[in-house]
Amino acid sequence: MSDKSQFVHIQKQEMVDTFLRILLKKGFTASKASRCAEVFAVNSLEGIYTHGVNRFPRFVSYIDKGYVKVDQEPTRSGGFGALEQWDGNLGPGPLNALAATDRAIQIAETAGIGCVALANTNHWMRGGYYGWHAARKGFVFIGWTNTMGNMPAWGAVDSKLGNNPLVIALPFGDEGIVLDMAMSQYSYGALDLYVKKGEKLPVTGGYDVNGNLTDDPQKIMDSQRVMPIGYWKGAGLSLLLDLLATILSGGLSTAEISKRPAEHALSQVFVAIDIRKLNHYPAIEKSIHAILDDYHQSDTGINGKAVRYPSENIRSIREVNQVRGIPVVKEVWEEICRIA
Amino acid sequence: MSDKSQFVHIQKQEMVDTFLRILLKKGFTASKASRCAEVFAVNSLEGIYTHGVNRFPRFVSYIDKGYVKVDQEPTRSGGFGALEQWDGNLGPGPLNALAATDRAIQIAETAGIGCVALANTNHWMRGGYYGWHAARKGFVFIGWTNTMGNMPAWGAVDSKLGNNPLVIALPFGDEGIVLDMAMSQYSYGALDLYVKKGEKLPVTGGYDVNGNLTDDPQKIMDSQRVMPIGYWKGAGLSLLLDLLATILSGGLSTAEISKRPAEHALSQVFVAIDIRKLNHYPAIEKSIHAILDDYHQSDTGINGKAVRYPSENIRSIREVNQVRGIPVVKEVWEEICRIA
Repeated sequence: MSDKSQFVHIQKQEMVDTFLRILLKKGFTASKASRCAEVFAVNSLEGIYTHGVNRFPRFVSYIDKGYVKVDQEPTRSGGFGALEQWDGNLGPGPLNALAATDRAIQIAETAGIGCVALANTNHWMRGGYYGWHAARKGFVFIGWTNTMGNMPAWGAVDSKLGNNPLVIALPFGDEGIVLDMAMSQYSYGALDLYVKKGEKLPVTGGYDVNGNLTDDPQKIMDSQRVMPIGYWKGAGLSLLLDLLATILSGGLSTAEISKRPAEHALSQVFVAIDIRKLNHYPAIEKSIHAILDDYHQSDTGINGKAVRYPSENIRSIREVNQVRGIPVVKEVWEEICRIA
Repeated sequence: MSDKSQFVHIQKQEMVDTFLRILLKKGFTASKASRCAEVFAVNSLEGIYTHGVNRFPRFVSYIDKGYVKVDQEPTRSGGFGALEQWDGNLGPGPLNALAATDRAIQIAETAGIGCVALANTNHWMRGGYYGWHAARKGFVFIGWTNTMGNMPAWGAVDSKLGNNPLVIALPFGDEGIVLDMAMSQYSYGALDLYVKKGEKLPVTGGYDVNGNLTDDPQKIMDSQRVMPIGYWKGAGLSLLLDLLATILSGGLSTAEISKRPAEHALSQVFVAIDIRKLNHYPAIEKSIHAILDDYHQSDTGINGKAVRYPSENIRSIREVNQVRGIPVVKEVWEEICRIA
């Protein structure tokens, strides 16, 4: 962030309290408001501002427009055995996703593995939150969501694919290891950040309006043609995640969501696996350590910057933000305070 | 393939018969030899030569060296509910993978979802084979394998990560849609093919010995530094797939496999989901059609080449190879015939 004066620093508790006041005004019950405020504040505390505090005003506007229904929660709609289908009834995305994660965990506790497919839900904000939630309870987690079309198929110009974030998490120590990745190389939020910093992207991130690959974030924002990770591979993975989310939940596909006036009524999948009852469970922590130790011994050549595993830096981000307060773009915080 | 004279064309049945003779000589029972020969021949028929006929001689040499134990098959080692652990006992990879897929399907039939984690197995050749197998039986399939280290972590020089292929499949029509992708942008087999054709790669595929990104396949083969799909994202996904395969199966990690004299004793995960009993099952086929129709309507601009979904071209490859015979590099077929 080139201009520090644009930021204010907000303590997590102040952020929670502010979100809480707004959500209570919007008709959330006290317990739902508290859980929802916590998701937005923790995402911000852990550095995922784009799907935390920065997104909160849009979340509130979606409530006002009726896309997010504050009084709704998921209801069981089908499935059998350890495979359940739930209808999110367009309730708040983070609360629906938390409920689905908890239900998948509950199923896994007796069935070893549990799968909840959730239709008609709303944006879950940061998918990694549910990965951390499951990992801290001792469960392996695999989950994904579809989105509206925001990424072209390989070789295409228009955005028929969603960036469909995928989350994979496992317990480690008293927390976890969490991979939380969209199928586009960069999110629009990330592109915007590079534009604001006046920097090029570290690697090619999409196309300009003439269809040439570029590392210029503004040119990609102009063309709206972000690049799938691994070109055709990430495009294929995105399509399959949408197909599975749609057919497992019986909900809307990216194609159908794209026809809506706004991104809502999404389809999501939550898989939890209970590793605590496995015979070799006592050896698992050591096994993870051994894998990470080997990984960390990667030769990084003349650059000498140690490799990191996904989510490895989260503790340090959290600690810095706990001490200094969460950095928030001044205008964003002012906007939030106006509705508080 | 620039020089057609280097290839012979072998009918599928002749290929099966040839593989069968060799496998019987190596001590396979008739029924196991038949299933194993079929996997190698079908992979070849469907155009995945690198993990079909081209790999058969190495498979045989691994039997000779004792890495692949022809008289072994998976035995149940743990798990509970719909989550089972099996020990592959170093049996033939394709047969172990087929058995694990069938077991996951069997669990899913009663539990909705079934997960088999398989330790101590061998290379499954083409992971997509098991995706097709499950899809044709009406099941959604998610599976992956770890491998020996063959891809550097993001920012690293040495190969601490496997390319850990991931397969996602679903039923469609009387067959399926199957994504089968390694976490590296190109396999070494693909790089070799571009070198032989004297062509550059369509997109950046790795690094030269000086650490610069390049589209020159020979330079990447010289450095052995293939690129993860999506740079840090594919590297992260690869690490997580290895972590999960290892902790779920209790088997070896990529780090441990890399210490072995050859790539064997792998860890794999097979998940099957039974969608046939879902209430909206009759609507699923139509839903898939709608998604693919929309996808196919992607605007491909001035190039005008229609987008394809993963595995879309398999029928045409299969039909061509059924008529003309499977194209096999002459030296490869001669080598196989010598041991037949």
